[in-house]
Amino acid sequence: MVDVSGKSATHRVAVAEARLRMAPSTLALIRAGSLEKGDALAVARIAGISAAKQTPFLIPLCHPIPLTKVEVHLELLDDAVRIEARAETVGPTGVEMEALVAASTAALTLYDMAKSVERGMELESVRLLKKSGGRSGDYARTP
Amino acid sequence: MVDVSGKSATHRVAVAEARLRMAPSTLALIRAGSLEKGDALAVARIAGISAAKQTPFLIPLCHPIPLTKVEVHLELLDDAVRIEARAETVGPTGVEMEALVAASTAALTLYDMAKSVERGMELESVRLLKKSGGRSGDYARTP
Amino acid sequence: MVDVSGKSATHRVAVAEARLRMAPSTLALIRAGSLEKGDALAVARIAGISAAKQTPFLIPLCHPIPLTKVEVHLELLDDAVRIEARAETVGPTGVEMEALVAASTAALTLYDMAKSVERGMELESVRLLKKSGGRSGDYARTP
Amino acid sequence: MVDVSGKSATHRVAVAEARLRMAPSTLALIRAGSLEKGDALAVARIAGISAAKQTPFLIPLCHPIPLTKVEVHLELLDDAVRIEARAETVGPTGVEMEALVAASTAALTLYDMAKSVERGMELESVRLLKKSGGRSGDYARTP
Amino acid sequence: MVDVSGKSATHRVAVAEARLRMAPSTLALIRAGSLEKGDALAVARIAGISAAKQTPFLIPLCHPIPLTKVEVHLELLDDAVRIEARAETVGPTGVEMEALVAASTAALTLYDMAKSVERGMELESVRLLKKSGGRSGDYARTP
Amino acid sequence: MVDVSGKSATHRVAVAEARLRMAPSTLALIRAGSLEKGDALAVARIAGISAAKQTPFLIPLCHPIPLTKVEVHLELLDDAVRIEARAETVGPTGVEMEALVAASTAALTLYDMAKSVERGMELESVRLLKKSGGRSGDYARTP
Repeated sequence: MVDVSGKSATHRVAVAEARLRMAPSTLALIRAGSLEKGDALAVARIAGISAAKQTPFLIPLCHPIPLTKVEVHLELLDDAVRIEARAETVGPTGVEMEALVAASTAALTLYDMAKSVERGMELESVRLLKKSGGRSGDYARTP
Repeated sequence: MVDVSGKSATHRVAVAEARLRMAPSTLALIRAGSLEKGDALAVARIAGISAAKQTPFLIPLCHPIPLTKVEVHLELLDDAVRIEARAETVGPTGVEMEALVAASTAALTLYDMAKSVERGMELESVRLLKKSGGRSGDYARTP
Repeated sequence: MVDVSGKSATHRVAVAEARLRMAPSTLALIRAGSLEKGDALAVARIAGISAAKQTPFLIPLCHPIPLTKVEVHLELLDDAVRIEARAETVGPTGVEMEALVAASTAALTLYDMAKSVERGMELESVRLLKKSGGRSGDYARTP
Repeated sequence: MVDVSGKSATHRVAVAEARLRMAPSTLALIRAGSLEKGDALAVARIAGISAAKQTPFLIPLCHPIPLTKVEVHLELLDDAVRIEARAETVGPTGVEMEALVAASTAALTLYDMAKSVERGMELESVRLLKKSGGRSGDYARTP
Repeated sequence: MVDVSGKSATHRVAVAEARLRMAPSTLALIRAGSLEKGDALAVARIAGISAAKQTPFLIPLCHPIPLTKVEVHLELLDDAVRIEARAETVGPTGVEMEALVAASTAALTLYDMAKSVERGMELESVRLLKKSGGRSGDYARTP
Repeated sequence: MVDVSGKSATHRVAVAEARLRMAPSTLALIRAGSLEKGDALAVARIAGISAAKQTPFLIPLCHPIPLTKVEVHLELLDDAVRIEARAETVGPTGVEMEALVAASTAALTLYDMAKSVERGMELESVRLLKKSGGRSGDYARTP
């Protein structure tokens, strides 16, 4: 675990995105909230937020940090659900991994909720959109 | 959590795949084991195995199950690392989510190990390759 | 941790209840889903299910068990939310604690969601309603 | 998870109470330390303290925070055990949920320790007694 | 994680021992229960039992297993506390690591309880005493 | 959990050591990386780092703290593996337990990796080497 003892506590933000591709018929079931397992969007949102807090127990070299905010939004596209996760802290190290873990876990939770109707869903992209606040400078993905 | 009280305990297997796209120069650093944070492949493999065991605490409606095997393999391609994770149990419910969580966590761990040299790496695919052993029948992804 | 090595694996069920008393105005906000923190009922339901799986890490002498089902239902009364949690396993030991932990955690999660509007809410009852399947005989609370 | 990035770190305290009603004969066994499972009061106290630290993994929208103090006291009344839990932090968000989780988990642990002699014990009250230190002002329950 | 899918479920037992050497004056404080942090023996016993259940999250290649019994005993010697931990399961894999984790965590908890009076305490032995029930045959340490 | 609300946040460091004695033939297998379970040293190092972060869930009265650095080094001696673990934080309480948990868990992980070839390995010493940064003064073990 990289030494951050001497780094100053600054406000850090990271935003990540995940995209779970699925059949329109599966999307329709999610939209209608009529999957056997219940309201997939609500469960996925909570799973993403909770997973962000478990990041130091999943990613071996991540520092445990006091997150000050986690948000997960799900958006229904034509052939996919797009998830955007935002993590924030005031501390000596960044929150990219927390945002990525939140986004991917929300997507995998959707998979779990809907897998009985479509096993072939694919998590086709998990990536960092932007980060700010650290010594290494800000980052924004070029489209 | 769906009721599996009445389902019989059978041998269940699931195999999932993740693919983390990155620049050839990042791949070269991983191959050489010369990243600042250490041997990324070894850390990612262990992270994937450990994450499989944390699946019921990440995916809200997953049953806690006694996994009988977890394996994570990493393969260096030209512009990506490909991860294959295999989970097995003898029990009343499948292990797809355990395999998917193992594969995606191994990939995100690689991201964490190498992000200081390339923030734009993208987890471009996480998906189930096959599963067997459950009442709902076997599944194999068509290429 | 009491020795259950020699007990046979039977189907075990436990049902517990929790009741969180609150002002009708707080109940109205929950019913309308208009709390600042979001849909309290959906979050509380998931929190209860997830907490059941964490029972062996909360209650020191509880055995870790493969739960085969967990359900949490929330019902809006006039001056309270009533939560009913059901846990099941096929194993050598009962699931009373899992049901009680699920019910109380769902109630405390509701408290967390609504505490900014009413700090005086009170969890006025958490209790076992019934259990079945163990060697010690069935139990049903007399009304 | 509500944004607390901009809130200042202040000393925050919360005190919660739980009350587990039981038969005098069960209380006598607890007092004498003669339950089959061992010293119920010592186990419950430790379980409450440990549970306070698990709060962010139980209550989905709770922030992970560096607790600076947790105390759990158990008091034997005539027909109940009364538990008082106190949590403190120096940070941007309150510790009500930590105190409530500590109190209720200590009570449920007592239930677990004594349930073989009385399954009908009831957790008849879990509530916040007071809190201080936050921007929303202090709170003290009116008797 | 080694494949145990095809191994039969048998009753498995492991017993491990840890020994924490300390000054007689520290031992006297533990015996009298007069350490500032409270009853060290009770806390250490519970910590050992709880730790056994966390073994699969500590030891990366350990299988998650439904423990059927965990016991931790502490014995005060002249210049040390001796801890004996016993773990049992009915399953396809052994419980040596669970017993060793229980014994060492109980010892480290004692260290934590008493470290303000003696920082030089040393955990001078953690070892397996015996195991039985697996395909690899029984084991008993020769004195 | 002792009250540290009023203590100032200082840079704190602790270094602990563990020593796992084993047969030269077992050491040779570890050195060659030819154990059936894989590269024992890499797995043990990661296990130690991860365990440090789990310290507040293992040692009941330990405060949850934002670790700023954890390092685990393994050194092959003639008849033992020596592990040195270093933990750091900037906060109101020390990190001795984190260093001790990291060192002992790395050692127990080595045991797990190699136990199929030698069950008699013994963790013959786990101890604090030094600590600095707290109000109680610095500590260094006298050789």
